[in-house]
Amino acid sequence: MVAEIPAEALQLRSLVRAENMLELFLEKVAVAEPGPNEVVIRVEAAPVNPSDLGLLLAGADVAAASAAGTPHRPVITAPIPDAAMRGLTARVGAPLPAGNEGAGTVVAAGSSEAAQRLLGKKVAAAGGAMYSQYRTVDLSLCLELPEGLSAADGASAFVNPMTALGMIETMRMEDHFALVHTAAASNLGQMLNRLCQEEQVPLVNIVRRPEQEELLRAAGAAFVCDSSKPEFMNELTAALTATGATLAFDATGGGTLASQILTCMEASASAGADGYSRYGSAVHKQVYIYGGLDRSPTVLTRNFGMAWGVGGWLLTPFLGKIGLEGIIRLRERVAAGLTTTFASSYTAQVSLAQALQLDSIAAYAQQATGTKYLIRPDQET
Amino acid sequence: MVAEIPAEALQLRSLVRAENMLELFLEKVAVAEPGPNEVVIRVEAAPVNPSDLGLLLAGADVAAASAAGTPHRPVITAPIPDAAMRGLTARVGAPLPAGNEGAGTVVAAGSSEAAQRLLGKKVAAAGGAMYSQYRTVDLSLCLELPEGLSAADGASAFVNPMTALGMIETMRMEDHFALVHTAAASNLGQMLNRLCQEEQVPLVNIVRRPEQEELLRAAGAAFVCDSSKPEFMNELTAALTATGATLAFDATGGGTLASQILTCMEASASAGADGYSRYGSAVHKQVYIYGGLDRSPTVLTRNFGMAWGVGGWLLTPFLGKIGLEGIIRLRERVAAGLTTTFASSYTAQVSLAQALQLDSIAAYAQQATGTKYLIRPDQET
Repeated sequence: MVAEIPAEALQLRSLVRAENMLELFLEKVAVAEPGPNEVVIRVEAAPVNPSDLGLLLAGADVAAASAAGTPHRPVITAPIPDAAMRGLTARVGAPLPAGNEGAGTVVAAGSSEAAQRLLGKKVAAAGGAMYSQYRTVDLSLCLELPEGLSAADGASAFVNPMTALGMIETMRMEDHFALVHTAAASNLGQMLNRLCQEEQVPLVNIVRRPEQEELLRAAGAAFVCDSSKPEFMNELTAALTATGATLAFDATGGGTLASQILTCMEASASAGADGYSRYGSAVHKQVYIYGGLDRSPTVLTRNFGMAWGVGGWLLTPFLGKIGLEGIIRLRERVAAGLTTTFASSYTAQVSLAQALQLDSIAAYAQQATGTKYLIRPDQET
Repeated sequence: MVAEIPAEALQLRSLVRAENMLELFLEKVAVAEPGPNEVVIRVEAAPVNPSDLGLLLAGADVAAASAAGTPHRPVITAPIPDAAMRGLTARVGAPLPAGNEGAGTVVAAGSSEAAQRLLGKKVAAAGGAMYSQYRTVDLSLCLELPEGLSAADGASAFVNPMTALGMIETMRMEDHFALVHTAAASNLGQMLNRLCQEEQVPLVNIVRRPEQEELLRAAGAAFVCDSSKPEFMNELTAALTATGATLAFDATGGGTLASQILTCMEASASAGADGYSRYGSAVHKQVYIYGGLDRSPTVLTRNFGMAWGVGGWLLTPFLGKIGLEGIIRLRERVAAGLTTTFASSYTAQVSLAQALQLDSIAAYAQQATGTKYLIRPDQET
């Protein structure tokens, strides 16, 4: 069954020490033999997503990080502020693997027919611990890549594509007809922009800089509102009126943006209402916070009536809601569009050891729009 | 059909003038002849609920109010801050009646059998405009009071009782098993405390003062947490763990209380979880804001994982959700408990003219726990 797999291979680990210290390092770990329904993947590409950073960096102050170890086996340490430590007690002392998703070649497979069928194929996997040279995962977490696609093409086949599809599915499940998206020039935002055009879902893109607005307009976006402009609130209200959007997905989380969106939704909704209601319009307005680019508190001014909701949105519980059948349907959609609708682009490709260099960490920790790292665990430093 | 009704009677009116000014006054208005399914009520008791104050006072600065007119026909004016004016454009220039609910004697009835049956009876009505000497309303808005009850007994038969019942119904509809309630020593809070004991629903009462805690404990409350105590967060977490409450109804709205409740719910939920999840517990935690005792922004620190929601909750849309059958079921429940479970108490009873005296307004505008006004429109000043 097993072909050319080493007994041990490198894996990136994130360790929180009791003395408020994060330690990142590479460790040789055993490559598990595949069970009947498992395959061993030689990981060739794994993205650094915002959703990976919480586990990886544990809220540490990476500006104060220091490097030790060797070029092949770097060891990074960084202090963790008290506030971040409070939520980390459950992981103190346990070195955790990281990397929610990635892609590579199946180099060994379990005894089942379905597993054997993947031998030698390129697959994407949402297996966790993908910042590893080799990773043994269950078939249910794998997506066979279409003929001719590289591991890099398939590295981001789960988190962003399923999140973008999940936003549209959520919109339909909760009886909304258009979407608002913040940090809309991100990889995910650009993907959602393409997807909404295909699905004919009106989308209001909120960005923070003029060049981000240009980028999205060049990609066919009909509604882009720049929050740095003084006329932002008026433009957003006009876009909400034009689209009828009453559901927003907010990647920033902190500050007043969610509140501003609700205020503009209410202004749009009550402009169409006749007569005065001291409770505001009866139109339900919803913002889901799915990221935390701004870690400051969410501030809601509540000048948007009583028919509103703000809440957390996370991919995994959403997938639980739509069930296996729904997940398979969405995955097939993704596989067909990996190099088009669901394509991701990367600004840097690094080996595992390079991913633990101070300048790399500083870059991906910033979560800046337009910066995206791809880790290539199969590459030597 | 018609017996002893004057052609015109006094009604309290609230007028917003374009020049940022609120005007409150009494006006003679025509008493409408009842249609076949309507009755004319001589209003004998109508409470001043927090939910009446928005329409009545329009966010005006009542501390700067001034009085004119005569003792029988007072005229109050008060300046409206710019921020409040923005939401009031739809009502500028239109003198609005006020008073969501009240009770009195049916002095005339339409031709239908159902209307005739109520002639001479005491009824409660959720008719709006109840700060009137006479009010013609549809039968569907009336609740016949049980034999022997006074109008004062039935004056608050809708808003608070249906809200308390609505909280428990919402809890059941959304798969929660216990409740948290803030401003828990209010008339509504005391009612909910009695109701939850009857229904065996575990209830965590949050109050702001030691004497409020004593009041609720004397009324049999098992869990009371005083937010003014330094150990509040620990006591709340312990109460949430003991009850399993994952749903809160918050009357205050502003500040950090909703956020604190979610933080304690998460601390309770993740204490029972095994292993570390950077997204927090999978337990959904919900706070519904149903009032605005604190008008400052709602501040959410988001240190409570991703499975959470905050939203507005309002009685009318809830009643829409449960439909006519549900409403009838709840109303029957209320009628049977008007002098026990659903009893309200009042600190002052005033005529319409007395309700427009500066000291009365200052008292009920404050919405202080333990202060509740009952207007008696049938009484001469």
